[in-house]
Amino acid sequence: MNTQVKEKIKEIVSGKNYFDSPEDKLVYSYDATAEFQKLPEAIVFPEDEEQISKLVKLANQEKFNIVPRGSGTGLSGGSVPVDNSVVVVMTRWNKILEIDQNNLAAWVQPGVITGDFQLAVENTGLFYPPDPGSMNVSTLGGNVANNAGGLRGLKYGVTKNYVMGIEMILPNGDFLKTGGKNVKDVAGYNLKDFIVGSEGTLGVITKILLKLIPKPASTITLLAYYDRLIDSAQSVSDIIAAHVTPSMMEFLDNTTINCVEDYTHIGLPRNAQAMLILEVDGKGSGVQEEADIISGILKKNKASEVKVATNEAQANILKTARRTAFSALARKSPTTILEDATVPRSELPVMMEKIIEAARKNDVVIGNFGHAGDGNLHPTCLTDERDKAELEKSHRAFDFIFNEAIKLGGTITGEHGTGLGKKQFLEGLAGIPGMTMMKQIKSAIDENNIINPGKIFDIGPKCEGSLPRNRNQIKDFHMH
Amino acid sequence: MNTQVKEKIKEIVSGKNYFDSPEDKLVYSYDATAEFQKLPEAIVFPEDEEQISKLVKLANQEKFNIVPRGSGTGLSGGSVPVDNSVVVVMTRWNKILEIDQNNLAAWVQPGVITGDFQLAVENTGLFYPPDPGSMNVSTLGGNVANNAGGLRGLKYGVTKNYVMGIEMILPNGDFLKTGGKNVKDVAGYNLKDFIVGSEGTLGVITKILLKLIPKPASTITLLAYYDRLIDSAQSVSDIIAAHVTPSMMEFLDNTTINCVEDYTHIGLPRNAQAMLILEVDGKGSGVQEEADIISGILKKNKASEVKVATNEAQANILKTARRTAFSALARKSPTTILEDATVPRSELPVMMEKIIEAARKNDVVIGNFGHAGDGNLHPTCLTDERDKAELEKSHRAFDFIFNEAIKLGGTITGEHGTGLGKKQFLEGLAGIPGMTMMKQIKSAIDENNIINPGKIFDIGPKCEGSLPRNRNQIKDFHMH
Repeated sequence: MNTQVKEKIKEIVSGKNYFDSPEDKLVYSYDATAEFQKLPEAIVFPEDEEQISKLVKLANQEKFNIVPRGSGTGLSGGSVPVDNSVVVVMTRWNKILEIDQNNLAAWVQPGVITGDFQLAVENTGLFYPPDPGSMNVSTLGGNVANNAGGLRGLKYGVTKNYVMGIEMILPNGDFLKTGGKNVKDVAGYNLKDFIVGSEGTLGVITKILLKLIPKPASTITLLAYYDRLIDSAQSVSDIIAAHVTPSMMEFLDNTTINCVEDYTHIGLPRNAQAMLILEVDGKGSGVQEEADIISGILKKNKASEVKVATNEAQANILKTARRTAFSALARKSPTTILEDATVPRSELPVMMEKIIEAARKNDVVIGNFGHAGDGNLHPTCLTDERDKAELEKSHRAFDFIFNEAIKLGGTITGEHGTGLGKKQFLEGLAGIPGMTMMKQIKSAIDENNIINPGKIFDIGPKCEGSLPRNRNQIKDFHMH
Repeated sequence: MNTQVKEKIKEIVSGKNYFDSPEDKLVYSYDATAEFQKLPEAIVFPEDEEQISKLVKLANQEKFNIVPRGSGTGLSGGSVPVDNSVVVVMTRWNKILEIDQNNLAAWVQPGVITGDFQLAVENTGLFYPPDPGSMNVSTLGGNVANNAGGLRGLKYGVTKNYVMGIEMILPNGDFLKTGGKNVKDVAGYNLKDFIVGSEGTLGVITKILLKLIPKPASTITLLAYYDRLIDSAQSVSDIIAAHVTPSMMEFLDNTTINCVEDYTHIGLPRNAQAMLILEVDGKGSGVQEEADIISGILKKNKASEVKVATNEAQANILKTARRTAFSALARKSPTTILEDATVPRSELPVMMEKIIEAARKNDVVIGNFGHAGDGNLHPTCLTDERDKAELEKSHRAFDFIFNEAIKLGGTITGEHGTGLGKKQFLEGLAGIPGMTMMKQIKSAIDENNIINPGKIFDIGPKCEGSLPRNRNQIKDFHMH
């Protein structure tokens, strides 16, 4: 990028919001995904919609790329810079603009931290369910761009179920406002739900209207340990079949249990082969009834121990075990590759076995945990990206896992997104007609392919930022 | 359309599935929307995906239009033929292919009647909530194409919340399969949710995967009459503010109450100015607790009478009053224009007043009922389209209503769709950037604009089937 263009960018956002020192570039060269890194040309912190619009128009003129970014907690490389790109950081857009009690809705800026928003909402007696693992760091804009999931997805759904409206700057610099406080709206195409999960490839989100719900009156947290993995999987199936819908049904395998215990020292049994953490919530006696049904199913399936939290502090300890799983695993090795293969719930036991098989066949360590009730697992490979042979083994293990997931009617990503990391698997899942349709839409809206190009898929000859299909060629993407 | 093209169509679907007599054309020239009618060139009943694909490819070659259609119960003209069009009727695709108890999902063909599907699902102990007013006639394909709402929307959401997967023939003849039995899936763009509600403009749906939920264990139905409209509106606001979520909260005004009583003779008080029908459901004691809270709020807001159904038969009578509202009003005049202006819930009382004002100012009779909990009203004008002066008055009343709804942050259509009937209002709501984006996407996917063109919006010079902006010019659209 030449100095003249950089000067124009600086003029748009003002000098104080423009950064391009080597240190700044390094800091914004990666997100939470292993293996992907690239230096941007510059980093900007725009102050208003007009600045973003001007910047996007300039990008079209001067043919540079825009990469929108929140906290960078993404796990598929969605906010990693691409060739010739300017990173647009939205973390300073961190105001909760309105909590509307009458319409159960809230307007927020995209840089609000998910966890901060949840607390603010709960203080008014309302509830915002989506709770991705990174919620204490992630931004709501990032959650919307990636349609973030979380632990409460089974009963309450994911981010898309809570987005009522979006304001954004489109790839041509236009200002789009779509959706609103109406709980039903079928006027025109559903642009809103299409933008949710588009991973920053359709524009820069500047404002979000989120749906809130009444806070559940009471909650019961349960925990079960198992000597056999299969018994935990059968418990999950039986609970779904009993028509009980827990607000949480999380699974941890033996590797994860041990890493969490090393990290937290909360007294988890190191020899347990599996652990389930469950929560039911609601109003009145129905909550206890559901807890009793679940408890019965856990015991019937030979849980070695079933615990019911007797107070909130206890419940929080149990949930902390699950919430720290990723961090606990990440401590164990220089590189942690966390994936999110997802299958129809009925295929969960098979998928669990396939993940064990993938680890064994390729001689790698894979911890497994995840949202069992959603069929959404997080096989996590403990590896070292500096050791190419070791890394190659983990890639082979994940290739096997994703292909098996697709064979089972599953998907390559339940909640992390496609980004750079899953691009090579998408066509196998979406098929050529699906890929064509996605590319047609992207090209129609982003004529010059300047907004986060090369994420999700590549378009035509403009493949900047693409992931080489052969992972051995990945070195161009690396700095270290 | 010349004979040669017709012969080619006949060859594709076979002669027995091809119709083009004047009587056949007449039968398929309209849907449930007042005022719109046009004769197609032919009607076909395709037998498989391949026939549809071939037909679509031929349409691209020979430049004729395809209008997909289910039962034709739509209320915005979405399935009314356009110029030079072939109606593709999907009602014979009426098989429930699978009810998957383990994954709480069902594969259906698009021609399955909504009500038939609900019964089949409930027989297995599961539940499919979307219940549009026309559910005993409407098809699931039509429901998906229009993102149909219904009485249970407040608690359970609308059709889009239950679509897990779609198979369809795209405008280029390709076969698209998107979504699946995974409860979480963020691989690539969210094509599925974009197709839901696209009103048959993006292809012909051939198979649908629907999400099911456990059937609520118990239900309580309540009813309240009011001497003043405003007290009913305040009851609705107070119930939402009390963080209770009824599974149904329906409103009928005095005009509608009287029409329903004329029709059903179930003993509704003719002097009541408003009536609310409410339902709560769930498990355990929470249901009764919610019913008690609601009952208290209804009484506090001066309901002249509050009734609680003591058995299912009684509950059904109460709900029948609501479900027959449209039919009861339709009996009263040669033409019934049923609309679905929707506002944020907090604006419901204002919108109710505006509807009364619209009727008074324009000297027309407008009955009002609808999904009060969703802010989704159905102002229904009793008129006669043969009397042009009378019709013009009703158009002026609705213009006023839609503009007021937009001013209140509302939308022009909560559940009926844009089709032909709301086209002229869409830009006022979606703005030029939104309209541009919709048209860009349609043009990218349907290059020759042959799939249900002129619905939702017009594209470029190809305005066949468009609604003249000035309703006085509407006569070209009419046969009678």
